[in-house]
Amino acid sequence: MKVKVEVFFKEGVLDPQGKTVKNALQHLGYDEVDDVRVGKVFTLSLKTSDREAARKRVAQMCEKLLSNPVVETYSIDTVEETR
Amino acid sequence: MKVKVEVFFKEGVLDPQGKTVKNALQHLGYDEVDDVRVGKVFTLSLKTSDREAARKRVAQMCEKLLSNPVVETYSIDTVEETR
Repeated sequence: MKVKVEVFFKEGVLDPQGKTVKNALQHLGYDEVDDVRVGKVFTLSLKTSDREAARKRVAQMCEKLLSNPVVETYSIDTVEETR
Repeated sequence: MKVKVEVFFKEGVLDPQGKTVKNALQHLGYDEVDDVRVGKVFTLSLKTSDREAARKRVAQMCEKLLSNPVVETYSIDTVEETR
C-alpha cells in the first residue's frame, strides 16, 4: 500500500523558504503569484493491506519523526492499494 | 486559485533523504515500511481564475525554478478555485 504524507508549517508560522520562492517567481515575471507555501511530501510503501491500521501507524510516524507537531501540520492520504 | 505542485526525484535517481527516513522508521519499530521517497510540495496562490492558462504558467515555473528537470519530475494539481 502506498501512503502519501504532506507536512506544512502551520498557518501563522513564518515560511521563509516559501517567501524566497515567491520573490524569485515574481522576479522572473510571474506577477500573478500571490503566496507560496513550501512543504515536504513523503511517499511511504508499506507491507500491509489494512488501510485503517496503516493510517493509525502512519499518524504515529508523523508525530514521532516525519513532522514537528509544534510548528507543522500533516495530512495522510492513501494513494494506492497493492496486494 | 490555489495550485499544488509536487516535485520528486525521478525513478532510478537515488533519494538519500528517503533512505535515511526509511532506516529511521524501521529503527523505531515500523518494520512494515518498505520504501520512502521524499519530495517537495509547493502550494501557490495565484491571482488568476483561468485554470488552463495557470497550469501552463505553473509548468514554466516548474521548469525554470521549482524543479530540476534533469533529475526531478513534477506534477501539477489545481486544488481550489477562488474568485
